[in-house]
Amino acid sequence: MDLTTVKSIYRNTAAYANKEVTLGGWIRTMRVSKNFGFIELNDGSFFKNIQIVFEAEKLANYEEISKQNVGAALIIKGLLVETPEAKQPFEVKATQIDVEGTSTPDYPLQKKRHSVEFLREIAYLRPRTNLFSATFRVRSLIAMAIHEFFQGKGFVYAHTPIITGSDCEGAGEMFRVTTLDLENLPRTADGKVDYSKDFFGKETNLTVSGQLSAETFAMAFRNIYTFGPTFRAENSNTTRHAAEFWMIEPEMAFADLNDNMEIAEEMLKYIIQYVLDNAPEEMEFFNSFVDKGLLDRLHNILDNEFGRVTYTEAVELLKKSGHTFEYPVEWGIDLQTEHERYLTEQIYKKPVFVTDYPVEIKAFYMRLNDDKKTVAAMDLLVPGVGEIIGGSQREERLDVLENRMNELGLKKEDYWWYLDLRKYGGTRHAGFGLGFERAVMYLTGVGNIRDVLPYPRTVNNAEF
Amino acid sequence: MDLTTVKSIYRNTAAYANKEVTLGGWIRTMRVSKNFGFIELNDGSFFKNIQIVFEAEKLANYEEISKQNVGAALIIKGLLVETPEAKQPFEVKATQIDVEGTSTPDYPLQKKRHSVEFLREIAYLRPRTNLFSATFRVRSLIAMAIHEFFQGKGFVYAHTPIITGSDCEGAGEMFRVTTLDLENLPRTADGKVDYSKDFFGKETNLTVSGQLSAETFAMAFRNIYTFGPTFRAENSNTTRHAAEFWMIEPEMAFADLNDNMEIAEEMLKYIIQYVLDNAPEEMEFFNSFVDKGLLDRLHNILDNEFGRVTYTEAVELLKKSGHTFEYPVEWGIDLQTEHERYLTEQIYKKPVFVTDYPVEIKAFYMRLNDDKKTVAAMDLLVPGVGEIIGGSQREERLDVLENRMNELGLKKEDYWWYLDLRKYGGTRHAGFGLGFERAVMYLTGVGNIRDVLPYPRTVNNAEF
Repeated sequence: MDLTTVKSIYRNTAAYANKEVTLGGWIRTMRVSKNFGFIELNDGSFFKNIQIVFEAEKLANYEEISKQNVGAALIIKGLLVETPEAKQPFEVKATQIDVEGTSTPDYPLQKKRHSVEFLREIAYLRPRTNLFSATFRVRSLIAMAIHEFFQGKGFVYAHTPIITGSDCEGAGEMFRVTTLDLENLPRTADGKVDYSKDFFGKETNLTVSGQLSAETFAMAFRNIYTFGPTFRAENSNTTRHAAEFWMIEPEMAFADLNDNMEIAEEMLKYIIQYVLDNAPEEMEFFNSFVDKGLLDRLHNILDNEFGRVTYTEAVELLKKSGHTFEYPVEWGIDLQTEHERYLTEQIYKKPVFVTDYPVEIKAFYMRLNDDKKTVAAMDLLVPGVGEIIGGSQREERLDVLENRMNELGLKKEDYWWYLDLRKYGGTRHAGFGLGFERAVMYLTGVGNIRDVLPYPRTVNNAEF
Repeated sequence: MDLTTVKSIYRNTAAYANKEVTLGGWIRTMRVSKNFGFIELNDGSFFKNIQIVFEAEKLANYEEISKQNVGAALIIKGLLVETPEAKQPFEVKATQIDVEGTSTPDYPLQKKRHSVEFLREIAYLRPRTNLFSATFRVRSLIAMAIHEFFQGKGFVYAHTPIITGSDCEGAGEMFRVTTLDLENLPRTADGKVDYSKDFFGKETNLTVSGQLSAETFAMAFRNIYTFGPTFRAENSNTTRHAAEFWMIEPEMAFADLNDNMEIAEEMLKYIIQYVLDNAPEEMEFFNSFVDKGLLDRLHNILDNEFGRVTYTEAVELLKKSGHTFEYPVEWGIDLQTEHERYLTEQIYKKPVFVTDYPVEIKAFYMRLNDDKKTVAAMDLLVPGVGEIIGGSQREERLDVLENRMNELGLKKEDYWWYLDLRKYGGTRHAGFGLGFERAVMYLTGVGNIRDVLPYPRTVNNAEF
């Protein structure tokens, strides 16, 4: 249908003033008296509603319209009139209103504040609320900003596989993928499940990271990125963990840890600027109703260089801080969220890269530093969230990599192609992972990962 | 590292002529004599190579360089010199070459033509060949074109879930997702597998389509699209089927079948124009070496309106054609690939939408036409491929939808939220699915889906 969008009216009011417009949208609220009524209509194109005025003497079906329920879909013809003296900048004086789809009095989204817990139970309706309309539109914009950022720099977008035949990605518990009939499993001669009968002829799982595949593409295209779903079958019932989430993993050849940090910082600033430019109304809403300091915090990030500190220095700073942590700080420990947040919120008061972690607490593929005790890893910590990005320079030296794999008992034959990358023109290279939902939480101030995913998957929950 | 890209030299040669450049890349071919040598270097930023000239008297490590194998990674400093009389437009006269990573004499990608079958076995290296470098770069550009197209029109990008708790998407065989120990399955009292012990507390599968979820978002944002992986556990070993593939599913409120076709046509033309603009070298390559008629065909699409024909008319046309089909044409049959291709390649000689299919052969959610025999469906058929897009106007009338579900024996309680959309301000709406890999095949001329996916998943194959 050829409809005028509410967004275009807000963005370019002069072009529509005193002209007829046709709108399609849903009733957010309605007030009706005997001879006239007001509708707050949302057409989905824009965060804000538009006010519709309708009068009994102008509409033959005034009676029908005035009985509509919240949520009903209408198609409205009318005159756009500027109302400089009123709360809203303009309104539409309706000349015709057609009911496209009715609603009912028990429509769950009545005009009152609903708890996010209640709204999760009606996740299929919650994008129609201010909070979730803003969240999912900003989520969409962040995704676009990420593609623009990387494509603008010539990075190739690589779709690494979701179903993986290797269980060697090593980043966490995995979900099994199978077409075997669980009520009637095929067995080998020795009584084990016979995976040779499974769809792929072997055991397969859902990916926990596209990084190892991404490296193969970086060795061809130099700069690449992934952006796809990843999965962790971890029984962690927190506000920051979901079993299914999206991740961005850039990987760059001829790049070291410094290049890695530069790109990560530039990317995060690009995303923030993009969202501030493209969703000012939504960001004002978050700043007013979700997280009062949000806009200040984001502008602060744009205006400042991120901090950089080595793990060793960070441990010293935390020890010297005088702060009592639940989990005491000692060189060699994996930093806990309390430590990370103290570093970024109290000590640096801005995003900070922590680099060069002890080799023992990081993944096998991270590049060993000359001190032989630390690896060229980097985590980006941000106020309010903690870790949002984790990355490293990769170990490109075949012998060093093989030594490390031996120490950890990893089998070379499981990684043959990954090791081959070090034989055939391997370069220094680096990359990182950005948890997409964490980025959305960070940019919106929304505190629970269940509220930034359309249909979150968590322990005991795969509804809708 | 601060390197000049080969792409920027090709695109803006004047800016680099007679200046020093530093390049990082991989040896594609090398010729060496006693005192000088030539390297074809590819740096991943661009489809084409750049020629490097190196001389014994200028390089202290001439001996080392001249012994490098194909595939080795080099960092090269040198002077960019235009060579208008030569085959290549310019070359770099090296002043310094450092070996970043060696290769070996048994590097599998020697200078000769390799079969695509062989290259699938070394899928981790094949992006380094011309064919796959072009394919995966164009794949990335098509993805970007799709995002640009929809975001430019204000569509919201929705991440519909990959793991689904409903098996009612109805589009095909599904993969089960589980964390149960298959060697030791928990059982209920009556001996069945106890899925209440599974991660999500019930049976879950990989999605075959995001459409039903997408409709919930369209009823909030009006225009939305998905772009994510989907899965079919079908035992079809063809050149057009993969178990894991990406799909784009736009969904539009206040839209009918005509709106749907208009958007589909505009989208496909946008993608083609984008790729022609942004990958001219790659498209020339495909046209020369993969599919001789490719560029003509794509320009033909840009210049023409797509055809439109009803299923009923199409059946008549096929019957009247005089052509003998393996599978005879009768009203009521599902069109086979031979019929689809004959329609688009022989009769229309351009893309054609076939609309209004018999209700019996289409999905339950498609809108029933007034004739009660057909539904407002549309398939887009394109020459060389057949069906590339399938879509429909959706049934927004609750009673009609429920009748159809009853006829098919579908349980209302499995679809409660989908039915609710028709109670709470349902609107006419429509959408379609574009198989992303089919689009890549169509735009590149590559004939096997295994060659447009980085790491294809097919029956008995989940390598890498």
